Amino acid sequence: MAKLMGLSRTDARRAVENGKVTVVQFGLGKLGLPLAVAIAAAGAKVVGVDLNEALVDALNRGENPLPEEPGLSELIPELVSKGRLKATTNWREAVKLGDVYVVAVPVTVEEDMRPRLSALLDVSEKMAHGLAPGDIVLIETTLPLGTTRRVAALLEEKSGLRHGVDFGVVHAPERTSSGRMLRDITESYPKIVGSDSAEALEAAVGFYSAINRKGVIEVSSSIAAEAVKVFEGVYRYVNIALANELALYAEEKGFNVWEVIDAANTQPYCHLHRPGAGVGGHCIPVYPRFVLYDALKMGFDARVLEAARRVNDAMPLHAVYLLVRALNDLGKPVRGSRVLVVGLTYRPHVREYFMTPAAPIVEELKDMGALLYAYEPAALKEDFERFGVKEWRGEEVDAALIVSGYKEFAEMVSRGEVKAEAIVDARGVVSREKAEAAGYKVYRLGEG
Amino acid sequence: MAKLMGLSRTDARRAVENGKVTVVQFGLGKLGLPLAVAIAAAGAKVVGVDLNEALVDALNRGENPLPEEPGLSELIPELVSKGRLKATTNWREAVKLGDVYVVAVPVTVEEDMRPRLSALLDVSEKMAHGLAPGDIVLIETTLPLGTTRRVAALLEEKSGLRHGVDFGVVHAPERTSSGRMLRDITESYPKIVGSDSAEALEAAVGFYSAINRKGVIEVSSSIAAEAVKVFEGVYRYVNIALANELALYAEEKGFNVWEVIDAANTQPYCHLHRPGAGVGGHCIPVYPRFVLYDALKMGFDARVLEAARRVNDAMPLHAVYLLVRALNDLGKPVRGSRVLVVGLTYRPHVREYFMTPAAPIVEELKDMGALLYAYEPAALKEDFERFGVKEWRGEEVDAALIVSGYKEFAEMVSRGEVKAEAIVDARGVVSREKAEAAGYKVYRLGEG
Repeated sequence: MAKLMGLSRTDARRAVENGKVTVVQFGLGKLGLPLAVAIAAAGAKVVGVDLNEALVDALNRGENPLPEEPGLSELIPELVSKGRLKATTNWREAVKLGDVYVVAVPVTVEEDMRPRLSALLDVSEKMAHGLAPGDIVLIETTLPLGTTRRVAALLEEKSGLRHGVDFGVVHAPERTSSGRMLRDITESYPKIVGSDSAEALEAAVGFYSAINRKGVIEVSSSIAAEAVKVFEGVYRYVNIALANELALYAEEKGFNVWEVIDAANTQPYCHLHRPGAGVGGHCIPVYPRFVLYDALKMGFDARVLEAARRVNDAMPLHAVYLLVRALNDLGKPVRGSRVLVVGLTYRPHVREYFMTPAAPIVEELKDMGALLYAYEPAALKEDFERFGVKEWRGEEVDAALIVSGYKEFAEMVSRGEVKAEAIVDARGVVSREKAEAAGYKVYRLGEG
Repeated sequence: MAKLMGLSRTDARRAVENGKVTVVQFGLGKLGLPLAVAIAAAGAKVVGVDLNEALVDALNRGENPLPEEPGLSELIPELVSKGRLKATTNWREAVKLGDVYVVAVPVTVEEDMRPRLSALLDVSEKMAHGLAPGDIVLIETTLPLGTTRRVAALLEEKSGLRHGVDFGVVHAPERTSSGRMLRDITESYPKIVGSDSAEALEAAVGFYSAINRKGVIEVSSSIAAEAVKVFEGVYRYVNIALANELALYAEEKGFNVWEVIDAANTQPYCHLHRPGAGVGGHCIPVYPRFVLYDALKMGFDARVLEAARRVNDAMPLHAVYLLVRALNDLGKPVRGSRVLVVGLTYRPHVREYFMTPAAPIVEELKDMGALLYAYEPAALKEDFERFGVKEWRGEEVDAALIVSGYKEFAEMVSRGEVKAEAIVDARGVVSREKAEAAGYKVYRLGEG
């Protein structure tokens, strides 16, 4: 098979397209699986390594473990039957096969903002066992700045090979959203690549040219590529914080922040974001923490990011405050009141709870003695149990608190189908007019 | 003539277009003059009130005092000769004539962030002398939230008329940029209007429909309209601060922030701004201070805005720091070194010095004993004198510090035409490659 180090981008691209390249990929999760499929579809032979045996077995039977991602159900059976895509839990065997190693294991943060690099460092050690001269490593996982260099150093140490000479590590951050993974990988945005090895970078440009129709943008170092992806998230995070701060100001000052944001954004240079009950998930709240933790170590004062974090982190409790006010207007204390929490996941229809704002909200309300129900179409039975809330099946409640932007629920409110006296909307999805016409008392975040 | 209070939007629009409406406008400056022209061009008779006698006389002779604004030189002589546009310093006579009053006098801030409302309150008092039942007042000046209500209360007090019954005040914030004023007023963006008088709002929608082809967006209160414009500026300001913070982080961390920002912005949800030597002018640094001062009074903690202000305010001194490092690399102290400051105005080619970052930079460098030259194509002789710097005519210097993004100067650098050893670029306009090829030592903001 073809080693890519030293090839021109054109030759590297052809090697992929002509089936000459074997890719060993670590991680077959929500990012990794669509990525493996896209790489195999481009022509490479892909061996995916994952710890999840059920997932590995299903994939090898040609089944799609992510039916919610368009395109996979068609491609997986075809690629598996042609022998272009297979999965294994046996990393020792797999690592011997690779010309290219792709890393798609998650890096998140601890409570104290320390990056959780264990999975990444673990697969790096495993890779080192198979690493051979001419191999390249492509890290798709979003990383704290400087981590690609750390992986390169670890690989040098463990394999005895020299970075930039025998092998090269490239950071090639994913730019994807759930529900459109395959499209995002292959055609939504240009691919960003950065490396401290010129040869590996050249080969990576060829590799991704075979996969991504929007082209490849080279930046001048691995750290610059890391920064590109982290800064995309930082932009979103800080702008959500700004929207939250302006929403709180609007409440104090007595106006409607939503209509103001909509009107301001009719000016094409203005992209104000939407306020909400908090920021969850594996991406947007995580990347700013990469910078904040690094800043802490460097003694660098990242004032804007730190202010953004404090504002965003306060939003779940502000949502609770709005609910407490609503109950108070009904003459009720929190203790003993029946409260419906709308949304447990960090985002509608995605079964993912990492850093979800619902967690501190549920915690606080339980602490205050509320009787909690939850509306969460994405949840399984065990999720409700873990949160310690009852799954709502239309029971009468005193108030509903909308934490996650479920439009279906907002429509039930508009139609008067929710048995509740008050609706507290911390996502701006409920129509005040319709909800009031349906007889509810309405409280919305960011309205005076 | 036609009073607009009580008319439908359609009738109000027709009244303007059919020449039945007399507008008395306060302020014929860079905003006011193009606005008066646009209103007269739409059909109204406009009497502009300004304190500047030379300006008033020139205008009445059909001359254009703002030749840099496209469209005015054609329209002014025509409108003046037809009697649709005239100017006066005699406000006592003028205020008797108005059906509609338009306010376009500046509101800025003091050093302590207190809004400087004196001009606005002064014209409000003057207006009160002429205010008659059926009149409407349109405030185009960007205002601190709540100011429109304050003007309405002042007019009630001084005129004895009742707001919402006899007259109405509407906030209709300008959304314009120098050099394209007429186009921005008439067709770039929809017009925003908000009022606490439903009748005045209805009439204002008709009035602006005659002027702005992009339509009119009504918001539900005067304070919401104030917020729309202030928030547009706040968005820009906070995002510039974020870019500045990321530039400082890039310097510490050792990568190039400019290539990272460009690459990140290939993702359509990412709109990272550009870092620089500071934020000046009458708009972007002023509007966040409206909020910050208000927050101070309310006891509201506007963390994100306050952090943004501190970062942006620190940038001029950071530019000085980059220069000090450059001189130090040349083995020179600041004292006695010849330094060329590129850009005194807050923005290239606009002769405007309000809050310009060049002011603290010049101050600091003079304080440290540098011999200062300045390159500033927009400046008059007296401007160089006021800054206490020599106008640069190609003299040899030790280093040039680019404070304002003059591309012409960057091109001189690329061609090796600037006699200097080091170029310090705090705006990202110089090509490092070309400048180094031309023999300069190059220092750029946001590069490690």
